[in-house]
Amino acid sequence: MKAARLFEYNQPLKLVEVPEPKITAPSDVLVRIAGAGVCRTDLHLIEAVWRDALGNPKLPYTIGHENAGFVEEVGSGVTHLKKGDPVIVHPLVTCGVCRACRAGDDMHCVSSSFPGLDGTDGGYAELLKTGARSVIKLASGTDPASLAPYADAGLTAYHAVKKIAPATYPGSTAVVVGVGGLGHFAVQLLRVMTTAKVVALDSRKEKLEFARSLGADEAFQTGQDGGVKAVMDYTGGQGADVIIDFVGEHGTPAAALKMLRRHGTYSIVGYGGSVEPTTLEMISRELAIIGNLVGTYNDLAELMELNHQGKVRIAADRFPLDDVVDVMHHLEEGKVEGRAVLVPAMPSAKKAEKEVARAAASG
Amino acid sequence: MKAARLFEYNQPLKLVEVPEPKITAPSDVLVRIAGAGVCRTDLHLIEAVWRDALGNPKLPYTIGHENAGFVEEVGSGVTHLKKGDPVIVHPLVTCGVCRACRAGDDMHCVSSSFPGLDGTDGGYAELLKTGARSVIKLASGTDPASLAPYADAGLTAYHAVKKIAPATYPGSTAVVVGVGGLGHFAVQLLRVMTTAKVVALDSRKEKLEFARSLGADEAFQTGQDGGVKAVMDYTGGQGADVIIDFVGEHGTPAAALKMLRRHGTYSIVGYGGSVEPTTLEMISRELAIIGNLVGTYNDLAELMELNHQGKVRIAADRFPLDDVVDVMHHLEEGKVEGRAVLVPAMPSAKKAEKEVARAAASG
Amino acid sequence: MKAARLFEYNQPLKLVEVPEPKITAPSDVLVRIAGAGVCRTDLHLIEAVWRDALGNPKLPYTIGHENAGFVEEVGSGVTHLKKGDPVIVHPLVTCGVCRACRAGDDMHCVSSSFPGLDGTDGGYAELLKTGARSVIKLASGTDPASLAPYADAGLTAYHAVKKIAPATYPGSTAVVVGVGGLGHFAVQLLRVMTTAKVVALDSRKEKLEFARSLGADEAFQTGQDGGVKAVMDYTGGQGADVIIDFVGEHGTPAAALKMLRRHGTYSIVGYGGSVEPTTLEMISRELAIIGNLVGTYNDLAELMELNHQGKVRIAADRFPLDDVVDVMHHLEEGKVEGRAVLVPAMPSAKKAEKEVARAAASG
Amino acid sequence: MKAARLFEYNQPLKLVEVPEPKITAPSDVLVRIAGAGVCRTDLHLIEAVWRDALGNPKLPYTIGHENAGFVEEVGSGVTHLKKGDPVIVHPLVTCGVCRACRAGDDMHCVSSSFPGLDGTDGGYAELLKTGARSVIKLASGTDPASLAPYADAGLTAYHAVKKIAPATYPGSTAVVVGVGGLGHFAVQLLRVMTTAKVVALDSRKEKLEFARSLGADEAFQTGQDGGVKAVMDYTGGQGADVIIDFVGEHGTPAAALKMLRRHGTYSIVGYGGSVEPTTLEMISRELAIIGNLVGTYNDLAELMELNHQGKVRIAADRFPLDDVVDVMHHLEEGKVEGRAVLVPAMPSAKKAEKEVARAAASG
Repeated sequence: MKAARLFEYNQPLKLVEVPEPKITAPSDVLVRIAGAGVCRTDLHLIEAVWRDALGNPKLPYTIGHENAGFVEEVGSGVTHLKKGDPVIVHPLVTCGVCRACRAGDDMHCVSSSFPGLDGTDGGYAELLKTGARSVIKLASGTDPASLAPYADAGLTAYHAVKKIAPATYPGSTAVVVGVGGLGHFAVQLLRVMTTAKVVALDSRKEKLEFARSLGADEAFQTGQDGGVKAVMDYTGGQGADVIIDFVGEHGTPAAALKMLRRHGTYSIVGYGGSVEPTTLEMISRELAIIGNLVGTYNDLAELMELNHQGKVRIAADRFPLDDVVDVMHHLEEGKVEGRAVLVPAMPSAKKAEKEVARAAASG
Repeated sequence: MKAARLFEYNQPLKLVEVPEPKITAPSDVLVRIAGAGVCRTDLHLIEAVWRDALGNPKLPYTIGHENAGFVEEVGSGVTHLKKGDPVIVHPLVTCGVCRACRAGDDMHCVSSSFPGLDGTDGGYAELLKTGARSVIKLASGTDPASLAPYADAGLTAYHAVKKIAPATYPGSTAVVVGVGGLGHFAVQLLRVMTTAKVVALDSRKEKLEFARSLGADEAFQTGQDGGVKAVMDYTGGQGADVIIDFVGEHGTPAAALKMLRRHGTYSIVGYGGSVEPTTLEMISRELAIIGNLVGTYNDLAELMELNHQGKVRIAADRFPLDDVVDVMHHLEEGKVEGRAVLVPAMPSAKKAEKEVARAAASG
Repeated sequence: MKAARLFEYNQPLKLVEVPEPKITAPSDVLVRIAGAGVCRTDLHLIEAVWRDALGNPKLPYTIGHENAGFVEEVGSGVTHLKKGDPVIVHPLVTCGVCRACRAGDDMHCVSSSFPGLDGTDGGYAELLKTGARSVIKLASGTDPASLAPYADAGLTAYHAVKKIAPATYPGSTAVVVGVGGLGHFAVQLLRVMTTAKVVALDSRKEKLEFARSLGADEAFQTGQDGGVKAVMDYTGGQGADVIIDFVGEHGTPAAALKMLRRHGTYSIVGYGGSVEPTTLEMISRELAIIGNLVGTYNDLAELMELNHQGKVRIAADRFPLDDVVDVMHHLEEGKVEGRAVLVPAMPSAKKAEKEVARAAASG
Repeated sequence: MKAARLFEYNQPLKLVEVPEPKITAPSDVLVRIAGAGVCRTDLHLIEAVWRDALGNPKLPYTIGHENAGFVEEVGSGVTHLKKGDPVIVHPLVTCGVCRACRAGDDMHCVSSSFPGLDGTDGGYAELLKTGARSVIKLASGTDPASLAPYADAGLTAYHAVKKIAPATYPGSTAVVVGVGGLGHFAVQLLRVMTTAKVVALDSRKEKLEFARSLGADEAFQTGQDGGVKAVMDYTGGQGADVIIDFVGEHGTPAAALKMLRRHGTYSIVGYGGSVEPTTLEMISRELAIIGNLVGTYNDLAELMELNHQGKVRIAADRFPLDDVVDVMHHLEEGKVEGRAVLVPAMPSAKKAEKEVARAAASG
């Protein structure tokens, strides 16, 4: 089968032929990929940003950690799934017996793998091997391809919003920093899952109206001060009760601490920079700073329910897996609107063009 | 009456005569100070560390924010206290009507004052003016002087332990960084309020046995690495579930992040330095960093109950208020064991010595 | 001033002239009533249902516990309110110093009074005496009269929904039993404050469409079985995760236990009957049964914010206080749509009729 | 192998020879029983008390749901256990993929079995078949036999205490009703896991000193009023904050509601009777009544840790499995002190006696 693999850091992925994965354990599941979401983390993987945090994984491997498709084959111990079931795939493969798994904190499993990230083969391919504990069956008849971005982007935003929701109340203010693929989704989730007033911040003016159309009570363009003055004015000088930062670099952490209310929570999703409060600042205003990893299996199931009820949506465009290098290039250049999904079964647009050209020439 | 006041930053306090405070509002209460605890924060106030965080308070003012004594007089609206009641004083004077006060988060009252810190006169004096909402009546017959350190040092440690308690469970590990005035108390509280294994860290070897005697399951001397290796070994390479840092400078924040388990909580009480994680570190291990201010009124009432039941204790020595400058000097030089309490009614040891000397000379 | 008072159980209230209340304590506040909500509890008070639970209050007294109006006068200790401020009044007068008050659980204050219920004079009058801690200032320019039902009916529904909200999640089912004054409001609150699917039950067919129009995902008419089959079918045989019962008699408790999911919560607001599970039933399905009293001050402030944002509304009709006996009679006969509010300043419709009649006769 | 089975309700178990269970699924585990705890629920099973709640299980089956022993054999999908590992067995066999399992609420698994209760063969036998998700490995060298009662009696008490712990605080009062097999353990757990004052109630005078020796702050003998007066006096007329009832019949529910504080929680573990509050009582005092089923897998792991640390202990006596009928008879007659554990490998005391007798006769 074909797969897009990382052979060398800071080089484009290569689309190559690889053997199909095989069922080896009773809990294994093979999923025929209908769509694999393209995530900014995929760019960072290529740039080696994650190398150390992931324990320096062996190259090459197939990337892609936002996967949806159809069950192809199941191991002997899997009784609740059968070939042809439409499914979305939780990004981690977890053991099911450690304390974290038993508590539902799948993403803190002590012997998990993370296909597409840690050297285990991911979903930029025709088939993905995962575990039965990672597979969520979708309603019969569902087209899974466009749901792929929920598996990580959607799930991470959901997890972050769910964690801070108890800190909100009618009259409180929740700020979303960055109205991109995750941020535009968080705006919707905050409306559905909390009673807070939602304020969106973005450096790009065109994102402000977009945020308002998704339910933000207010949206401000960040200038020199990262939006601090706008948020302080909006909150009557008190600051925001919670801030979810989908940027995490270029000064957003410092600005967030300045616009945070006493006893407020600064919640981090985006990464790249650092956050550097003094310990005096942390205690004198009793602040909390929390990181967010992807969510749990139940989080993903809940999110699929919200999507099914029509309460939230992620805008996603489909591209042929064959064009993966171009798609990632476009993402890097900021040319992708919403989320991009790679579809193995879709013919390459470039090939198509070439064939047209050839036909014309031979005509 | 006499009072020890801050006239100039980086200069010793001056013991001077000032007018007695007067009841002006119906909720006012005057407390005759039996003891006022001496806190490291008092040194920091003199060093101007807090000046900006406190909005540059006007000098001079009387410091002292750990106060206990007897009710002297109450305003016309106070019906639950009467002259002579032994009391301990919550450090803030709060409004009682803002959302924070109504929710019990007294220390986040939007129109509070903090006697002894923010320019309002504190308890290094014969009388303290506070509000009825800040006064906890003690059991009849109680000697309040030795309880003064509970009003801030004890309360802050209690609040910090109570906040992290839900993150602990049998088999989890809680690390206390710094076995000083607050840390030695936190060790006791962790034993009483959680089921975690308690590990104490200190750079001073003599503090290790002290920590164990108070109930620590283990105690390690911090060397070059701030105790990271010892804690990682103790926890089988997983790291501590929670860390409460009573130092907050000299490298403790960086070491804490290194010895913290995935999904762990680093809780800050001590201050002076800064904590500087990358946003990638925060999200890839899903860490939480939380600051702690002093606790609530109910926290203090609960703490008095634990003390009353004999479950926790703070070692305190009494000194004459007249000797305040010497006592603070000793604290700065690390010569104070446990907590020091200033007692207005106690004759100066120095005067006593001087009188003895004079008597001898005239003899 | 005029006031409607309970002189004898099971007899109509009498509208009489009484002296105006006076400020006697520094924290007292007099409110000029703009509107006082008429509650089913007022009927039950007259019927002596509450007599024992309230400690057999001394008659006569003025009833009315859903009050809104304008500040008329404040005690010497009240600094955050002034004459003319539009306000809504929390139903209890609380001490502010007990543990419950300090924790924000105002309704469990150990030395509270409950004007209009426990023998303390309530708001079916021109002026109400309450405490500063019970008064919520509304935005300048607000007309408080129509907001009166929020002070108890709205607040109780809000408190009940807020308590069960943590037990809901996307895909869970919340059942509202009884689409009356509180139930129709709870349907709205469940939509705004949770992600559960909302199912309304009522014995009256005409209430079903009303519930759907307010946001219920489904509404069923209860027949012989109290709606058990409909809810079990709707939930695929699992039962509802949470049930809030605004009836509490005529078989609703027994039906609720039958349609409750394993580990589900049955939340009681309406009263009159009893709930009688076996202890085996409680443990084998691990059920929870919880009662709800009115909410906290902060709950009421949050509710006013939701109303201000236009997210929830209570339908209320105004009637002259002079016609109190007729209005209560109509409520008893089920002729009041939504909530009735008594307005002291409104001329009696009956008097008006009489005057017209007289004028005609003398013409 | 030999097994003690229920052939007919209200008749003694029969000890018979049955085929050994076989591994059939990849997640199956066979445990060689070292000890099986005898529980009052086993008596109730025979008395058909549970028949309907369990869906009328098919007879005969082997009872015994408190099991500990050594791994005998594992299915092909089990990698974390091997033959000879000492283990304790969580009482349910759970699916691992439903929402409840994923959230850690094992006992609410939607497709679980409950060996020894629901018709699935339990542990009054030489071998028990369970699932890998139900097996907790104990420290190497542990003798599992005496730990068997932790698997259900201990676990249920732990779960109940853990659930109510957040409602306690220093100065609050927790009442334990019934100082039997579970109650005497709950007293210890309340001491270790909460800061509440612990009050034990029992109708048997000899249990009072026993409760005090385990850490109860006070113990009262229940008379006519079920201990109501004693608890009300102890709590200054306020009532207990939480009550855990290990009896659940013979009037304990009615007494519990009378001695419960406003906003208090009545937690039920024992069963047999019913609890019958009026809805007015539930709301006017805002009470909560909660049932408790056995705990989660993580609960059991935590409990094993507390036992390992020496903080709690259950007194258990061993008896030969061969003598099961006699042992159950003794339990019924109240002649068993602490918990009884059946040991398959232990020779029958009666046989031994008989052999002695025979030997003597033939001598």
